[in-house]
Amino acid sequence: MSAPFSFELKAKDGRARTGAINTPRGLIRTPAFMPVGTGATVKAMFPEDVAATGADIILGNTYHLMLRPGAERVARLGGLHKFMHWEKPILTDSGGYQVMSLAKLRKISEQGVTFQSHLDGATIELTPERAIEVQCLLGSDIQMVLDECTPFPATHEEAKRSLDLSMRWAERSKAAFETMSAPGQALFGIVQGSIYPDLREESARALTGIGFPGYAVGGLAVGEGQEAMFDTVEITTAFLPEDRPRYLMGVGTPQDMLGAIARGIDMFDCVMPTRSGRHGQAFTWGGRINLRNARYAEDATPLDAESKCPAARYERAYLHHLIKSGEMLGAMLISYANVQFYQELMAKARAAIGAGNFVAFAEDVARRYAVDDES
Amino acid sequence: MSAPFSFELKAKDGRARTGAINTPRGLIRTPAFMPVGTGATVKAMFPEDVAATGADIILGNTYHLMLRPGAERVARLGGLHKFMHWEKPILTDSGGYQVMSLAKLRKISEQGVTFQSHLDGATIELTPERAIEVQCLLGSDIQMVLDECTPFPATHEEAKRSLDLSMRWAERSKAAFETMSAPGQALFGIVQGSIYPDLREESARALTGIGFPGYAVGGLAVGEGQEAMFDTVEITTAFLPEDRPRYLMGVGTPQDMLGAIARGIDMFDCVMPTRSGRHGQAFTWGGRINLRNARYAEDATPLDAESKCPAARYERAYLHHLIKSGEMLGAMLISYANVQFYQELMAKARAAIGAGNFVAFAEDVARRYAVDDES
Repeated sequence: MSAPFSFELKAKDGRARTGAINTPRGLIRTPAFMPVGTGATVKAMFPEDVAATGADIILGNTYHLMLRPGAERVARLGGLHKFMHWEKPILTDSGGYQVMSLAKLRKISEQGVTFQSHLDGATIELTPERAIEVQCLLGSDIQMVLDECTPFPATHEEAKRSLDLSMRWAERSKAAFETMSAPGQALFGIVQGSIYPDLREESARALTGIGFPGYAVGGLAVGEGQEAMFDTVEITTAFLPEDRPRYLMGVGTPQDMLGAIARGIDMFDCVMPTRSGRHGQAFTWGGRINLRNARYAEDATPLDAESKCPAARYERAYLHHLIKSGEMLGAMLISYANVQFYQELMAKARAAIGAGNFVAFAEDVARRYAVDDES
Repeated sequence: MSAPFSFELKAKDGRARTGAINTPRGLIRTPAFMPVGTGATVKAMFPEDVAATGADIILGNTYHLMLRPGAERVARLGGLHKFMHWEKPILTDSGGYQVMSLAKLRKISEQGVTFQSHLDGATIELTPERAIEVQCLLGSDIQMVLDECTPFPATHEEAKRSLDLSMRWAERSKAAFETMSAPGQALFGIVQGSIYPDLREESARALTGIGFPGYAVGGLAVGEGQEAMFDTVEITTAFLPEDRPRYLMGVGTPQDMLGAIARGIDMFDCVMPTRSGRHGQAFTWGGRINLRNARYAEDATPLDAESKCPAARYERAYLHHLIKSGEMLGAMLISYANVQFYQELMAKARAAIGAGNFVAFAEDVARRYAVDDES
C-alpha cells in the first residue's frame, strides 16, 4: 500500500492524451470514466460486474456517505473499499457540490458550510478540514479539495469572490491532507472561475502554485451549454501542467467526453449511464435509444450487437417489457450495458489516441450519436 | 424437444420422496423449489444467477404475462424461454388465482371468468380453453388447468360447488391441452376442496379419474394456518398416485415446505425468497434475519457463512446500509441469497431422503428457524 501515486503520459494526438495513473490499488488507464457509486454502490450493479466492464476506478460521494452510513462507521468497518466490495481505486468528491444541490438551509462562511441533512434534518458542518477527514476515514485513493461549485450563471464579480474562497479552501484542504492522509493517496485541486477565461487562468495558476498531483475542472456541466463548456475546458487545460491528470467533473454524454478529451481531459465521472439505465435509456454503438419507445415492443434484435457486454445481448423487446413493467432487471441490464459502453468508449479513445486517429474516431462516434430516438 | 415427460421416484423416507421429473428441457430434481418469475423475470435477479442457485425450473404467471407483454407477443418473439433468457423448464399457472387476487370486477360463470385488467381496465375472458391456449403460446413445459381457488374460509357447500366447477374445468382444460400442446409438455390437475377431507378425497379421485401426469394441491396457504394445511396435504396426497409428481402451490416458508415434503409433496413455488429479499428479510442457515434491524448496522459478519451463494458473502452491515438506503443492490443480493438458500434447502432435503434421515434434517432446520429476529 506504499507505492507512490504517479501519472505517466504515454501518447498525445493533438491535445488528446492517453496514459496511466499508478496507485497502490492499481492502474487507472486514461482517458478514464469513473462510474458513480453515490451511496457505496454503483446503482443496480454488482461490484464484480462494474469491474467486468473495464472500470479501473469508481467515484464515491462524500456528502451521501458522511450522512449514511457515516464516515466513522465506514472506517470502523474497514473502509469504503472493503465495505462495498470494490478493491480497485476509489475517488471521492469533497461533498461540496451535493451540499449545494441536495442539502437544506445551507450557509457558507469563510470557515466552511453548514447545512441540514436531506435525510433527517441534522445540522452538519463541512469545512475543508472535515472534508479531508471524511475522505481519509472512507479511505479513498484520490480525494478532492472542498470548493464552492460556483452557480451558473454568475457575474464576473460573483465568480471571482467564489473562486477566491475556493482557493483559500484548497490551501487548507492540502494542509489537512498532509497531516491526515496515508501513503499513496492523492489530493486533487479543482479549478473554478465559471465561464470567464481570466478567472479560469487565475484559478489554474493559483492551484498549480499550491501544487497538486492532479487537477479537476469544476463548475461546468451546470447549464452553460456544450460550446461554453468546451471553450472553458480548452482555456483551463492550457494552464495546467502536462504531467498531471486532469479530471472534468460530472461530465457527461459520449460527445461531451470526446470533445473534452480532444481538449486535454483525462478523467470523467457521471451518473448518466446508471441513471439513464434506470429510466430505460441505453447508450449503444448505434446511438442512444429509449427502450420505453413502443417501436421496441417486438424488436427481437439485441440491445447492442457491437458491445461485448453480457447485458447487451438481451433483446430490445424484453428490455422494453421490463422497463415498462418497472422490473428491476430492466434497470440492472441497461445500467450494466451503459457502463460497459462508457468503458468501451474510453478504451477505444485510448487506442485511437495511441494510433494517432482520435479525430476520426470522435467523428465516427458523433455520427452514430447525431440522431437518437429521443429527438 | 420430443423426449417424453416422465417422473422417476428414486427413494422414500417415510412419506417423503425424492426423484426426478424428466422434461425435454432438462431434469427437475425433487423435492424442487420453483422461484417465481411473475412478469418474465425472477425479480431483481439475472437469469444466469437463478440457474446458478441450482433451480431446475421456474414459474411464470399466466395472468401477468397475458396482460403484459401478452401471450401472442411472447409467441411471436419465440416463446417465454427465449424471451426471458431461461433455457430450463418453466411451469405456468393458469391465471385463475391472480384473477381472483388482483383483477377488478371479476365474474365467474360455467364458461369461465371475465375480469378487468388491473393494468388498463380492459375486459378479458379467461376460460379453461383460453388458459391452455395462453400457456401453449408462452410455451411452458408444465401447464396448469384453470380452476377456481376456493376462498378461505368456505362452507362445505361453497367448497363443494367450487370444487365441482373446477373439476369440470379440469376436463375442459385437458381436452384443450390435447389439441394444442406440443410433445413433451405436461398438464397438471389441481386438487381443491378447502379444508374438508371428504372434498379433498373427492377432488383427488375426480382428477385421477381424468388422468394427469402430475397433480397440484391448490387452495392452501390462503389463511387456514399451518396445522390445517399440513392435515389437508396429508389427506390429499394419500389419494394421489405414487408415480406422479405432487405440487403444493404457493408454499412457503422453510418449515412449511419441510412439513409438506414429510407428507409426500414434491414441488413448491413461492414469492417469499424474492419478495422478502426486496424488503431486507434474509433466509440463512442460522435462521431468518431482518437486515433493516439496527443490530446489523455494524455487523461485519457475512450474511450466511454456511451458504455457497456469492451474495451471502456480503457483510450484514453493508446489506443493512443498502436496504435502509433503498438501493437496488440490497434487493439484488438478498434475493439471490434467499433463492440460493431455498435451493440448498431442497438439495439437502433430497440428500436426507436418499440417506433415510429426513426427519432429523427437518428437525435441525426447525431448530435453526425456531427463533428469528422478526419475533
